[in-house]
Amino acid sequence: MSGVAARRHTPLYRDPTAPVDARVGDLLARMTPREKVGQLNQRMYGWDAYRRTPDGGFELTDALYAETDRFEGLGALYGLQRADAWSGVDHTSGPGAEDAAALADLVQRHVVERSRLGVPALFVEEVPHGLMALDGTVLPVNLAVGATWDPELYERAAAHAAAELRARGGHVALVPALDIARDPRWGRTEECFGEDPYLAARFTEAAVRGMQGEPGEYFAADKAPVVLKHFAGQGATVGGRNSAESELGLRELHEIHLPAAHAGIRAGAAAVMAAYNEVDGMPCAGNRALLTGLLRERWGFDGLVMADGLAVDRLARITGDKVSAGALALDAGVDLSLWDEGFTHLEEAVERGLVSERTLDAAVARVLRLKFRLGLFDRLHGTPPPPADGSEVSRALARAAVTLLRNDGVLPAPAAVSRIAVLGPQAATTAHQSGDYTAPQRPGTGTGLLDALHTLAPPGVDIRYARGCALTGDDLSGIPEAVAAAAASDLAVLVLGGSSARTPETEFDANGAARRAVSHLTCGEGADLAGLGLGRAQYALLDAVVATGTPTAVVLIQGRPHVVPDTAGALLTAWYPGPWGGEAIAEVLLGIAEPVGRLPLSVPRSAAQLPVHYNHKDTEYGGYVDESAEPSYAFGQGLSYTGFAYGPPRLSGSTVEADVTNTGRRQGRCVAQLYLRRLRTPVWPRTLELCGFRAVDLAPGETRTVTFPAGAVPPGTAVEFRVAESARAALTAVPTQIFTAPDETPL
Amino acid sequence: MSGVAARRHTPLYRDPTAPVDARVGDLLARMTPREKVGQLNQRMYGWDAYRRTPDGGFELTDALYAETDRFEGLGALYGLQRADAWSGVDHTSGPGAEDAAALADLVQRHVVERSRLGVPALFVEEVPHGLMALDGTVLPVNLAVGATWDPELYERAAAHAAAELRARGGHVALVPALDIARDPRWGRTEECFGEDPYLAARFTEAAVRGMQGEPGEYFAADKAPVVLKHFAGQGATVGGRNSAESELGLRELHEIHLPAAHAGIRAGAAAVMAAYNEVDGMPCAGNRALLTGLLRERWGFDGLVMADGLAVDRLARITGDKVSAGALALDAGVDLSLWDEGFTHLEEAVERGLVSERTLDAAVARVLRLKFRLGLFDRLHGTPPPPADGSEVSRALARAAVTLLRNDGVLPAPAAVSRIAVLGPQAATTAHQSGDYTAPQRPGTGTGLLDALHTLAPPGVDIRYARGCALTGDDLSGIPEAVAAAAASDLAVLVLGGSSARTPETEFDANGAARRAVSHLTCGEGADLAGLGLGRAQYALLDAVVATGTPTAVVLIQGRPHVVPDTAGALLTAWYPGPWGGEAIAEVLLGIAEPVGRLPLSVPRSAAQLPVHYNHKDTEYGGYVDESAEPSYAFGQGLSYTGFAYGPPRLSGSTVEADVTNTGRRQGRCVAQLYLRRLRTPVWPRTLELCGFRAVDLAPGETRTVTFPAGAVPPGTAVEFRVAESARAALTAVPTQIFTAPDETPL
Repeated sequence: MSGVAARRHTPLYRDPTAPVDARVGDLLARMTPREKVGQLNQRMYGWDAYRRTPDGGFELTDALYAETDRFEGLGALYGLQRADAWSGVDHTSGPGAEDAAALADLVQRHVVERSRLGVPALFVEEVPHGLMALDGTVLPVNLAVGATWDPELYERAAAHAAAELRARGGHVALVPALDIARDPRWGRTEECFGEDPYLAARFTEAAVRGMQGEPGEYFAADKAPVVLKHFAGQGATVGGRNSAESELGLRELHEIHLPAAHAGIRAGAAAVMAAYNEVDGMPCAGNRALLTGLLRERWGFDGLVMADGLAVDRLARITGDKVSAGALALDAGVDLSLWDEGFTHLEEAVERGLVSERTLDAAVARVLRLKFRLGLFDRLHGTPPPPADGSEVSRALARAAVTLLRNDGVLPAPAAVSRIAVLGPQAATTAHQSGDYTAPQRPGTGTGLLDALHTLAPPGVDIRYARGCALTGDDLSGIPEAVAAAAASDLAVLVLGGSSARTPETEFDANGAARRAVSHLTCGEGADLAGLGLGRAQYALLDAVVATGTPTAVVLIQGRPHVVPDTAGALLTAWYPGPWGGEAIAEVLLGIAEPVGRLPLSVPRSAAQLPVHYNHKDTEYGGYVDESAEPSYAFGQGLSYTGFAYGPPRLSGSTVEADVTNTGRRQGRCVAQLYLRRLRTPVWPRTLELCGFRAVDLAPGETRTVTFPAGAVPPGTAVEFRVAESARAALTAVPTQIFTAPDETPL
Repeated sequence: MSGVAARRHTPLYRDPTAPVDARVGDLLARMTPREKVGQLNQRMYGWDAYRRTPDGGFELTDALYAETDRFEGLGALYGLQRADAWSGVDHTSGPGAEDAAALADLVQRHVVERSRLGVPALFVEEVPHGLMALDGTVLPVNLAVGATWDPELYERAAAHAAAELRARGGHVALVPALDIARDPRWGRTEECFGEDPYLAARFTEAAVRGMQGEPGEYFAADKAPVVLKHFAGQGATVGGRNSAESELGLRELHEIHLPAAHAGIRAGAAAVMAAYNEVDGMPCAGNRALLTGLLRERWGFDGLVMADGLAVDRLARITGDKVSAGALALDAGVDLSLWDEGFTHLEEAVERGLVSERTLDAAVARVLRLKFRLGLFDRLHGTPPPPADGSEVSRALARAAVTLLRNDGVLPAPAAVSRIAVLGPQAATTAHQSGDYTAPQRPGTGTGLLDALHTLAPPGVDIRYARGCALTGDDLSGIPEAVAAAAASDLAVLVLGGSSARTPETEFDANGAARRAVSHLTCGEGADLAGLGLGRAQYALLDAVVATGTPTAVVLIQGRPHVVPDTAGALLTAWYPGPWGGEAIAEVLLGIAEPVGRLPLSVPRSAAQLPVHYNHKDTEYGGYVDESAEPSYAFGQGLSYTGFAYGPPRLSGSTVEADVTNTGRRQGRCVAQLYLRRLRTPVWPRTLELCGFRAVDLAPGETRTVTFPAGAVPPGTAVEFRVAESARAALTAVPTQIFTAPDETPL
């Protein structure tokens, strides 16, 4: 009887032994409409919730008090830990590894106390490539991750990022994992795993598995629910224009842009973010067919849908006002808004009949459910301890991402090299090698290529450095110094690229006096680049260095493919490799590590030939009058310091096998790629589709058999398979016999 | 009783007083399956059906006999009159104005005799911009027609073309009128009326009205049923790649690519051509949703669907074989094939159950119906007399198409000009000013700009000519001569451009000896241009001429917008103006005619910023890092030699009014453009949409009120209207009050 009495006084929702759904239902039934609406809002910038005290602690702001007063609680708080130029948070103001958990605890205590029912807030943070907070371990950007073709490695990195987030009191990770890179003009190409739906889907699964851990009702203490973003089709906006319209039809959307999302949902992703862009007329945040019809009803997703920042308010462009915009978004399937005004008026929207109370309740239940699953009502876990140092996994990803595209014997640097000129605006700095959505790094974090070469090159090698030019602008005055260094060396390493760094750099005059602050931003969100060019100065530097006749290896640090003339003896790209990228590149240049990266997207010859993807429809297009329609480097390409030969592929039951041989004199890793070609199909087929890949380490002369499952082909569709080292090689590779799929899951 | 007896012996289908549908039904019931299948085929090239006899007459070929034997008759014959490099027909072999009708009669007599039931063939000809046959009157290409913003004038031209076709024994006109120019890289941009669905739809209606005349059961003797092409979305293929995939969604398709087709159908078009391209996965020729669901069932189209050449056989890429491809196309809604093998096996396809006999019969009935409507069974008309000379209407279109884009006082040529340098590869030739799908012209047809200036310039004006360079290639050797001519003149007219001419030109060496045949093809079907560039030599010529300091007017002869630096004092484009284009341009240069053309599509700054249209979605995109997202010249732009001012627009009932004033000192014509901006709408709106235009002739100082209907707005949608001289001007123009449409036909 005392148990019954205790239950009378302890509400069901506070009972950690009750099923989550029962707890949600109990809590929901106790809430007022205003409290419910509060759960769906995430209005504040987290950095506005606190300020530093003179003694180095934190205090809460009036802004936070006002926000928690408004709805008597707080649904979610975005970016409490965010540090970057936009938030204005730096080492003097923001929480770091040592005090972030204390800050989170301070805020949460206030939220819970302010809430009549003691409902805690979700702390939502950007985790695009590592936690975007002071002392967060920066990983290579997604495009570099895609170049590794190694989802298992990425899963480890994702697990590390989640553990860091949770150890600092954060809960939910915003993870770019759904955008497919179909137009490299788009500044957010760096946030994509590449152009291919199959490859991207494998990394999306890895992100979910790594961050969320084993599926279950409750998340482990060091695991974080993900908000996969962006849903859907954001990589398809016209002209590579950020958050512009996408004109895609449903088939293209399903074949290219949705497989990664579907894979993420099947892997158990807790949430997705509704994208800014429209899909054929209807913005995702107001798109019921997408968020409810497809996502929930067809795919069975039972998680949370969060809208991108202000995406709900933007709907007022079609509804005429923000109240209706909020109602449209809620009715479409958005549960949690970000920064919008529209979602604050949902009480009124329900009263006016613009959206039903039942829909409102369903959204609130989804928010609450995630809070229960995180154990926020139970303090089940406390704040877990921080994970071990993450730099090793970041470095491993950076190493695996280095993609060698051309090599006329220049690399690896021969043992006889005694003088190396290290040149170019990306050679001696780490400021531009980490991509967008990167928190300021503490001085001394990471290694640029110049420092890494100093450390890793054999003793006695003379290394000379000249910047040559800045990343942007037309100043050619530094080129002669670079030319002199190249001319006096046996090998020139010319490090060019783009930048997604938002903090302007200080330029100095000849006397060392600060002259002006210059932004070199050419990539990242909102930084779309029409011409895919490196700019006049970098091209001039390249021409001048190559003209010296010194063997030259061009290294590109970039968040998208740039158009670079094929004039140097070697070309490799490290993408944005993160803070430790310099070491990864140096290891490959010197032959300490083998280059194992493979292109996760096609490198176009120019912006004029876009779009360029290997998996275009099989229309046998013959090319332009003035340009081929083929890329300069194809999807899947990437050289090794050894060579590989592929034997003819064999169908063996429902698997495809092929023998791969290392034909060179060095140990190496090939990435055997399985492509299918549809021969009979209900709609127009693509030329090729990636449907499997396997990395194989091979000693010189060694042969191994690689095996792929051939199962996931729509029933009745006739296909043939090809195993090759790239999409280009697959075009002419020997196919298997024709395979007609039994009744299996469609691709 | 004798009447009944007579009817017994004269089958119903031969009774010209019986309703067409009854005649069709009667004939169909008498036909064998093989005869039916024959009616759906149009396999032969018409030029293979005849050859010249030694006495200059024609004789029929074994190929024709074999083809008519195969199905005991002939469904349709394509291109009996076609003359061009591809058909190999020239003045020595092809039919001209004097003997085409006799050839048609010779072939038709054979077809009817070979047919058990006496079914005549349809003679189908290309009429893309005038009849593509020897002595056919060449009109400016559609893009030039679009620049006139004058559908009434084009309707007259279309009527002339139909009369020419019928006077020569042809029946059916293939008319490009549905493709919307959304990517200027596409070589067939010249065949589009522009980028805008509303503007294009007005010209499509004009084509139908002009060629077909008043709607009725029978076509008048000088009227020709049209096959509007291409249905649908061919202007939306990716990368401007001819017949490549289109990834468009249905909304974009309906809003941009279908309105012209719908307008053509509503105007009574007899037929449409199913396009090569797919729409979101399914090629149009096999797309039942498009050809039957939309076209016939939703739009109520009861005419013929013809497939583009070999488009049916291409479907074998998805069906696996051509028999199934034919069945797929027939089932989708194709009635008449062109050149395919697939449609010859339809008997087998019906027997195998791949398509129903009922579907076959329906297609045959549609072919027969068109033959009855043309009076082919009745010889109702005989061959009508040829129309009067068509050069005047062609010249009028060319004149109205000249579009002045920039003018720093260079034009019109001042009275004081005494020396004019006429320069450039397009200055002295008519060979490249007529576009693709043009028959060889008899020597002496038309006038190039140089000759026209000689004729039209005031007496005493010294005109010097230098070609400067060829249209393509890198030969810069002629530039000094052009520079010298420019330097010695008061005005330089530099005539640059592209070419859709498929006949190679003979180049001569310094001694006048023929050196080699050179093609300058950069535009037209299959000639897509990635970079939108004029080529190195033309740019060098431009730079060199401008550097002389002589006031320079650049004239572009082109089938698409090219990227041209804004360095000369004046820039105008005549598009491909046709044979008499030189006169039209000279009249504008000299001020004999006012420039009245307006851009029917945006002129991009570079290929890197594509797509560029004024009617993009209203996402307020801020531009690229390295480039604006705005065009260099906007849709609707076009200068006059006078100026115009627009008063604020007024809503007056269901019309919009605005006062337009000629503010300059010359007579002029403004094209007042009405744009709407949606404020409340079910889907994401475009920035602006053209919804009306009116040309107004105004004397200096004169003011007139222009009135537009404002009716065709979807009910409930709130819009405002703006009246302006271009889409760019409309962005900042004063709007009307908000207009909420009553219950009317949606746009």
